[in-house]
Amino acid sequence: MAPCCVAIVGCGLIGASWAALFQHAGHTVRAWDPDTGARGGFAARVAGPLTQLQQIKTGAAPQGDLTVHDRLEDALRGAVLIQENAPENIPLKHRLYAQIEAAVPRDVIIASSTSAHPWSDLVPGMRSPDRLITAHPFNPPHLVPLVELYGPDPKVVDWAEAFYRSLGSAPVRLKKDAVGHIANRLSSALWREAVHIVADGIADVDAVDMALVNGPGLRWSVLGAHMAYHLGGGVGGMAGYLEHLGPSQQKRWDSLGSPTLDADTRARLVEGVNTEAAGRSITQLEAERDAALIELAQMRQRLAAQKD
Amino acid sequence: MAPCCVAIVGCGLIGASWAALFQHAGHTVRAWDPDTGARGGFAARVAGPLTQLQQIKTGAAPQGDLTVHDRLEDALRGAVLIQENAPENIPLKHRLYAQIEAAVPRDVIIASSTSAHPWSDLVPGMRSPDRLITAHPFNPPHLVPLVELYGPDPKVVDWAEAFYRSLGSAPVRLKKDAVGHIANRLSSALWREAVHIVADGIADVDAVDMALVNGPGLRWSVLGAHMAYHLGGGVGGMAGYLEHLGPSQQKRWDSLGSPTLDADTRARLVEGVNTEAAGRSITQLEAERDAALIELAQMRQRLAAQKD
Repeated sequence: MAPCCVAIVGCGLIGASWAALFQHAGHTVRAWDPDTGARGGFAARVAGPLTQLQQIKTGAAPQGDLTVHDRLEDALRGAVLIQENAPENIPLKHRLYAQIEAAVPRDVIIASSTSAHPWSDLVPGMRSPDRLITAHPFNPPHLVPLVELYGPDPKVVDWAEAFYRSLGSAPVRLKKDAVGHIANRLSSALWREAVHIVADGIADVDAVDMALVNGPGLRWSVLGAHMAYHLGGGVGGMAGYLEHLGPSQQKRWDSLGSPTLDADTRARLVEGVNTEAAGRSITQLEAERDAALIELAQMRQRLAAQKD
Repeated sequence: MAPCCVAIVGCGLIGASWAALFQHAGHTVRAWDPDTGARGGFAARVAGPLTQLQQIKTGAAPQGDLTVHDRLEDALRGAVLIQENAPENIPLKHRLYAQIEAAVPRDVIIASSTSAHPWSDLVPGMRSPDRLITAHPFNPPHLVPLVELYGPDPKVVDWAEAFYRSLGSAPVRLKKDAVGHIANRLSSALWREAVHIVADGIADVDAVDMALVNGPGLRWSVLGAHMAYHLGGGVGGMAGYLEHLGPSQQKRWDSLGSPTLDADTRARLVEGVNTEAAGRSITQLEAERDAALIELAQMRQRLAAQKD
């Protein structure tokens, strides 16, 4: 996609990660945040993700410019897409959208990074609700390719899909507005059972995480859950699987837990992750995660290049 | 661990994958299956996984011998561990364990690869139930490191843990006997919601799989679910996460689906994976999965080597 101008509204961690991804793809980025401190530290927060992207992606377009603005209207000037990363506060987002709609032409797309809210919570009060889409990234967005898209106007979503794909991201479209989109619904379902396993005394926190990372998580990084059952059905595929093992799967579902995050369970979870962290700080753990995600991204680039 | 003699009982795909892993680590492998055809094709089925292991692991011990035997007793001779991969049929497994116990000394460990059954279903009728453990691999075992261990005798499980670790696998211990161990419980919980998302019309099968592979799956291959929420809590870690977002997570859990695998849902799943497969056969899809898993295994070796 030809370089264009993109606005970042909300200069936190997600905003910084998006800005790096946009700049790295050659786009001009203009950023704004109501908080002076957030604006001041923004360029420095973008620098880390940008360096990581340079490690991963070779042959990219010349890097786009980044400017941080004191006034929202200045950041929006010339933008074809506005990536909104404001706090998960509905009245605040509504006020922001009103300000944006007053400042930009009708065809400018507003893409909300919201994790907590569905599209239908965001649009009340908007003049042109169809211009707004949810474009939910998975943390950290410059290293994890998923972007979940929902909006009612297919033309708007088509453009956004092409835009995010051109960044090297993996946009996925929802057919229907849903709380938690796809990925957080799946994460939530898995974590509920992970908490149950700990609360029920089947295994400790670190054992559950180790099982996930060395088993299903590893496989889900190359093969989806539906496709895994397709392969699990042997030559009969998914139809064979459902015929032979559907009933036992349904029975397994009935045996899954419904834990409560009560004081005892919370204490076990906190103690468990501390054991697993073994003294490593959050910053250290994030650095380890990022190093592994960079390796994975490089691996995927190699595999994709082999296919071409 | 010093090379020893391991018996494979059950010469299907899982047995072949185990045999390759054992041989590659330098152990002598003696295999048996009641079916002449399964015995006849076994060496050929082991060859593929063995070649894949040679691609991944360098500097391994000299490869152990593999022999296939017509009589169970001959395969068991000298074994310190018997890896049982018989069909998931309880009376059949009970008969098999009786035959094995009659043939080998009391200190030989029987490790069942069972996916469907907990330890307590396997041991009725055994003379020394403590010698039996469940050692559940995740398919395909020579490429996915997880082995889930449960048994009541800590000394037996200690030995097994050291044995599987010496193969390069990632053994994880359960504190309590449980249907589905850890990994299949997590997989089941995630798939239930994945099916709900399709049945409810939120997204298509291929979109759900693409979201998983490019989002949470990718992250779970480097970071467990509990640890992800620890990092999601910022500087407050898991305690901070639970305090601020515990209630919204609990609310999310209540909104997850409880789908039924009825005719309509089955049809959607079958049609959906066919769209996703886009003409690729099961064999082709497996080859693609394995190629990616081999890359991942090589990547993990590099990362581990950097840490040393």
